[in-house]
Amino acid sequence: MSEIPTVLVVGTGLIGTSIAIGLKNAGYEVVLHDENEHALSVALAKSGAQELSNQACDLVIVATPPSAVAEVMRHALLTHPHAVVTDVSSVKATILNALSDLGSAELARVVGGHPMAGREISGAAGAQGNLFVDRPWVLTRTDFTSEATFKKVEQMVNALGAVVIERSMLDHDEAVALISHTPQVVASVLAGELVGADAGHIELAGQGIRDTIRIASSDAGLWSEILAGNAANVAERVRSVATRLGEMADAISHGNHDQIISILEKGTAGRDRLPGKHGASRVSDALVLVRLDDKPGELARLFAVAAQAEVNLEDVRIDHSLGRMTGLVELTVSIAAQSTLESALTLAGFVVIN
Amino acid sequence: MSEIPTVLVVGTGLIGTSIAIGLKNAGYEVVLHDENEHALSVALAKSGAQELSNQACDLVIVATPPSAVAEVMRHALLTHPHAVVTDVSSVKATILNALSDLGSAELARVVGGHPMAGREISGAAGAQGNLFVDRPWVLTRTDFTSEATFKKVEQMVNALGAVVIERSMLDHDEAVALISHTPQVVASVLAGELVGADAGHIELAGQGIRDTIRIASSDAGLWSEILAGNAANVAERVRSVATRLGEMADAISHGNHDQIISILEKGTAGRDRLPGKHGASRVSDALVLVRLDDKPGELARLFAVAAQAEVNLEDVRIDHSLGRMTGLVELTVSIAAQSTLESALTLAGFVVIN
Repeated sequence: MSEIPTVLVVGTGLIGTSIAIGLKNAGYEVVLHDENEHALSVALAKSGAQELSNQACDLVIVATPPSAVAEVMRHALLTHPHAVVTDVSSVKATILNALSDLGSAELARVVGGHPMAGREISGAAGAQGNLFVDRPWVLTRTDFTSEATFKKVEQMVNALGAVVIERSMLDHDEAVALISHTPQVVASVLAGELVGADAGHIELAGQGIRDTIRIASSDAGLWSEILAGNAANVAERVRSVATRLGEMADAISHGNHDQIISILEKGTAGRDRLPGKHGASRVSDALVLVRLDDKPGELARLFAVAAQAEVNLEDVRIDHSLGRMTGLVELTVSIAAQSTLESALTLAGFVVIN
Repeated sequence: MSEIPTVLVVGTGLIGTSIAIGLKNAGYEVVLHDENEHALSVALAKSGAQELSNQACDLVIVATPPSAVAEVMRHALLTHPHAVVTDVSSVKATILNALSDLGSAELARVVGGHPMAGREISGAAGAQGNLFVDRPWVLTRTDFTSEATFKKVEQMVNALGAVVIERSMLDHDEAVALISHTPQVVASVLAGELVGADAGHIELAGQGIRDTIRIASSDAGLWSEILAGNAANVAERVRSVATRLGEMADAISHGNHDQIISILEKGTAGRDRLPGKHGASRVSDALVLVRLDDKPGELARLFAVAAQAEVNLEDVRIDHSLGRMTGLVELTVSIAAQSTLESALTLAGFVVIN
């Protein structure tokens, strides 16, 4: 094996091409393959990588659509008999189970991977080498994954600036059913209620429903593959939500206040378990609320004041109304920085609430 | 009636006190009443209004908790026989129906009101006179509301800078069941799923679930009153969501791809019906995506560049990962301003995607 690892990326969409760019920048040799010639040519141009011919590869990263991943991994294990093979798909057990008939020598060279980076856009055109910086990247071992194999994939993930989080296949799939796949389904179904609604009803929509159904605008084809790949976990969790909603509907119908309050309070407790952002749920975070006037440049001025006061903003949320920028701005900062920021903002003429 | 209208606000929480401050600023005479002496004293100090003694009032605004509104309105109609009476609660039919035994002379003086302003904070301490600027404020007539009555309330709403939207009681209540009450219930129930979950699962949570359950942190006592006041509409809508989720769970279990895709696509179609913000669903809007480095002051610099380029930002969204500010920033601007902004940002060294 050469000192500079050669990585083959199969599938040059947003994720595959972003990996190619990032690994090139980190000094890897990168070769690319995609059945779609147009996608491949864009990816080659963006990354400066080479097209796959007969290079010997140390690492194969399969970044195809979910339904093709297992077969492409199998093919890679056979055609690159010394290479480590990993993938980037958001479901793990169905893919790794599909390879379980392989021998331990092959499975020793396999690690499942899931970079949890944004999918707001798709395609090679939107790829960037820094897409994974500071993002979680879950790795899952097979029963036979060798230490050397795991380390090679871990190094690649670190080279992209991502944070390795190791989980078992089953753990990963249960986790994403809970924190990604079920929210996607719930948001889509709730958003679907708007389809037949009166325009005059929708006109009253505020920031609440807007946030709740934001992720409902999604790639239905990709998501149907993801949900199919994690069917048992997602179906169970979605059924649980459906059952709880049915109970809530009954409680509301029957005026059962205690039960209504208990369900709402459980929601608050669940929401408070999310780490970090929004609502200052970390004990070290404070929320500063500022009412912004509807004047051009006010937001820029707000951030300039924060920067001048040398306050690091952990998070920013802007509440809208009637399609204008005016509204409440929520700034999350460390408790240590709160009073510095509030003073600086007040001095600059901003309305700080509380 | 004097030329300067005298307004009585009953209930000095966030909404009542904000109304008092705003109307004082607009030149109204304002008197306040609250059973809670502490809340009242904070509100008097913040607004500069007077305590209710025996002033003659032209307009009574009832801003008590929902469960007390109907009785307080009834009392106001009797004790202020020449005053117009309105409220600010988020459900209309149950309140106005509770007054239906009154004569047409009394009901002529009643208009239901619902200012759709933020409730992120509560209590008189957080009140501001500009809370309602550019926000929708729904007004609903009784069968007997006189034109003079409606006009008086409309003038008050306009004086606060809010936008009057007239709806029937039934229309209003159906609308808020759809766009506010059901999303609240769904977010709370979904968030409740996190309560028993492994910490290692929750650690993988990203921006998607964070947005989906943001509103789950809510005042359970207030919300149980709101849901009870709109029970039939909310229960029906929540049951519909529960049924659709059950169907989706079955479709996922049975691998029914067509049905899964159809439900997901319906979600996208519903999401696209929301006016304006997020995702540039207005045809006149464009999305500019910028990847932000994790350096202090980058966000300030971004907004400064936009301000210098004289581009008006319609919306800003920041996607987070692992508790840092790095990530993708979504700027919504008019299509006309898109290339100006992209050039200015690129020139300033920002990574603009696409």
